Amino acid sequence: MNKQILLRKRPMGMPEQDTWELVETEIPQPKNGEVLVQTHYISLDPAMRGWLNEVKSYIEPVAIDDVMRAGTIGKVIKSNNHPTLKEGDVLSGWGGVQQYFCTNGEGQFKVDTNLAPMTKYIGALGMPGMTAYFGILEVGKIKEGETVLMSGAAGAVGSVAGQIAKIKGCKVVGIAGGPEKCKYVIEHLGFDDCIDYKNESVYKRLKETCPKGIDVYFDNVGGEILDIALARLRRHARVVICGAISQYNSNQIQGPKNYLSLLVNRASMTGMVVFDYAKRYKEAGMQMGMWMMEGKLKTEEDVYEGIENFYETFTRLFTGEKRGKLVLKVV
Amino acid sequence: MNKQILLRKRPMGMPEQDTWELVETEIPQPKNGEVLVQTHYISLDPAMRGWLNEVKSYIEPVAIDDVMRAGTIGKVIKSNNHPTLKEGDVLSGWGGVQQYFCTNGEGQFKVDTNLAPMTKYIGALGMPGMTAYFGILEVGKIKEGETVLMSGAAGAVGSVAGQIAKIKGCKVVGIAGGPEKCKYVIEHLGFDDCIDYKNESVYKRLKETCPKGIDVYFDNVGGEILDIALARLRRHARVVICGAISQYNSNQIQGPKNYLSLLVNRASMTGMVVFDYAKRYKEAGMQMGMWMMEGKLKTEEDVYEGIENFYETFTRLFTGEKRGKLVLKVV
Repeated sequence: MNKQILLRKRPMGMPEQDTWELVETEIPQPKNGEVLVQTHYISLDPAMRGWLNEVKSYIEPVAIDDVMRAGTIGKVIKSNNHPTLKEGDVLSGWGGVQQYFCTNGEGQFKVDTNLAPMTKYIGALGMPGMTAYFGILEVGKIKEGETVLMSGAAGAVGSVAGQIAKIKGCKVVGIAGGPEKCKYVIEHLGFDDCIDYKNESVYKRLKETCPKGIDVYFDNVGGEILDIALARLRRHARVVICGAISQYNSNQIQGPKNYLSLLVNRASMTGMVVFDYAKRYKEAGMQMGMWMMEGKLKTEEDVYEGIENFYETFTRLFTGEKRGKLVLKVV
Repeated sequence: MNKQILLRKRPMGMPEQDTWELVETEIPQPKNGEVLVQTHYISLDPAMRGWLNEVKSYIEPVAIDDVMRAGTIGKVIKSNNHPTLKEGDVLSGWGGVQQYFCTNGEGQFKVDTNLAPMTKYIGALGMPGMTAYFGILEVGKIKEGETVLMSGAAGAVGSVAGQIAKIKGCKVVGIAGGPEKCKYVIEHLGFDDCIDYKNESVYKRLKETCPKGIDVYFDNVGGEILDIALARLRRHARVVICGAISQYNSNQIQGPKNYLSLLVNRASMTGMVVFDYAKRYKEAGMQMGMWMMEGKLKTEEDVYEGIENFYETFTRLFTGEKRGKLVLKVV
């Protein structure tokens, strides 16, 4: 049988368990020209919260009663005359929160598990890694010697974006929740410093760690922290709006009341969606793979098991009880 | 005697009359190498409200008991061995709210009143005009065929920026307060449409007038209108943060809660300060003068008389009881 997680209703605020339902259906059979994929790992990302809302966004909302949308990595276990894909091929793509699915290959990318383990292809070599790469380089336009502030520094995107900024010769200060994460960000990831927003005054520590202000703020969180960062911008600073995890479960988004710092400092705030860079994923993946092999880029997945545990694993995105890329192991 | 307006205290909210005091002092005498200037017109700008606050900004706050800072245009009436300036020269610069001042010429620009009347040099050929020119072209980066939304459309900056966008082949919709101003914006300035925010639903009218959304929003007002504009951005839209007149007298700035539209639409919001373009004022002035002569750019000054009426004239900036560039005639 095929275990699937279906979206049953649109949550207000933090989703509750009955937002989704686990159902079992027949394993689907590939039509002519299709393959059957068995999913090994499911990617859990903060962006998924946005897909639950019935609003115009960069992607259609997940429809009620549909399989929950998710990035996946899995193996072809049956081919029905597919022209190029064959049994044993490993595919990364939009498989959704389920154990099996059929595809004609559209939106799926064949990956080489000899180069990197499966989980990397939904982590640093997948959507979060691509977001980090293009966000910090193309939108943040970091330059050697600049000061970069990174929120969500222990997360899937922030940990990678911050390390890229270090590789490029920036001073990088992170923000993360709790002393353990901060220690990890400094000692393991090599950031210059890390502010514990749960136990320290972000404003005070930011003044200490970045006395001349910030050239690039890469924002994954929104809310208060965005406002504090805006208050400390340098002239011509760039704010990358990558996400706003503190606001995703809120019914009333908190607008950055310090936005006029953009005027005072001739600064900019720019939004990004990683899909726009799809044509350059390969180039980015090769560069990131190189940095990983050279030991310059450290990436980590936090893996939980069992599709039955989708809900409680998903909530870790928002409680912060995870480190690096959050992944659900299905097989 | 020299009538001067001195700043006496830092206002909270909308400044009250006793924020300033009118005093009379001796007319100053130019030192060796200086000239004495008699001011003819004083420029009244929303930015002046910001200079009253004791906060780090793009310019020092006006000090308590100092003459209130203001752009001016006046005539040299005495020279004490100044190497280049002589009696009768007309100077535009930072003269402050007073009738006479001495200067060695620094920060003052000699202008030619044969080319344009004095008031134009603190209007369309002065700071507001330069702000409009560089804001819409350099920050807004307008392209032919794009849709531009202009708040403060009947104001000193918005009226000029919108007309430049029309000259460049954009569709331009203004926002202004009251049917009379809207009529002026459409019929006299030639905007495609104008929304009366005091009597119409901006959101509804924006959907009607810009059904495909906005490519460039030039913001002079902030607050609710900024939020509505953000909600209607097109992909890769640019928001120019030029000012926020709705917020200047507020003790708690309203942050744009729709800022995540920047993410969804891969859009940007960029602040500007006109002083950064000082080296190109001449180029801009020549271009604007040309457009004015060709009848493509219409500019208007709303002139009030008497330095004694500084306070009540200043308040017109915020009540909206003026059209085009607000000017105080001193002589």
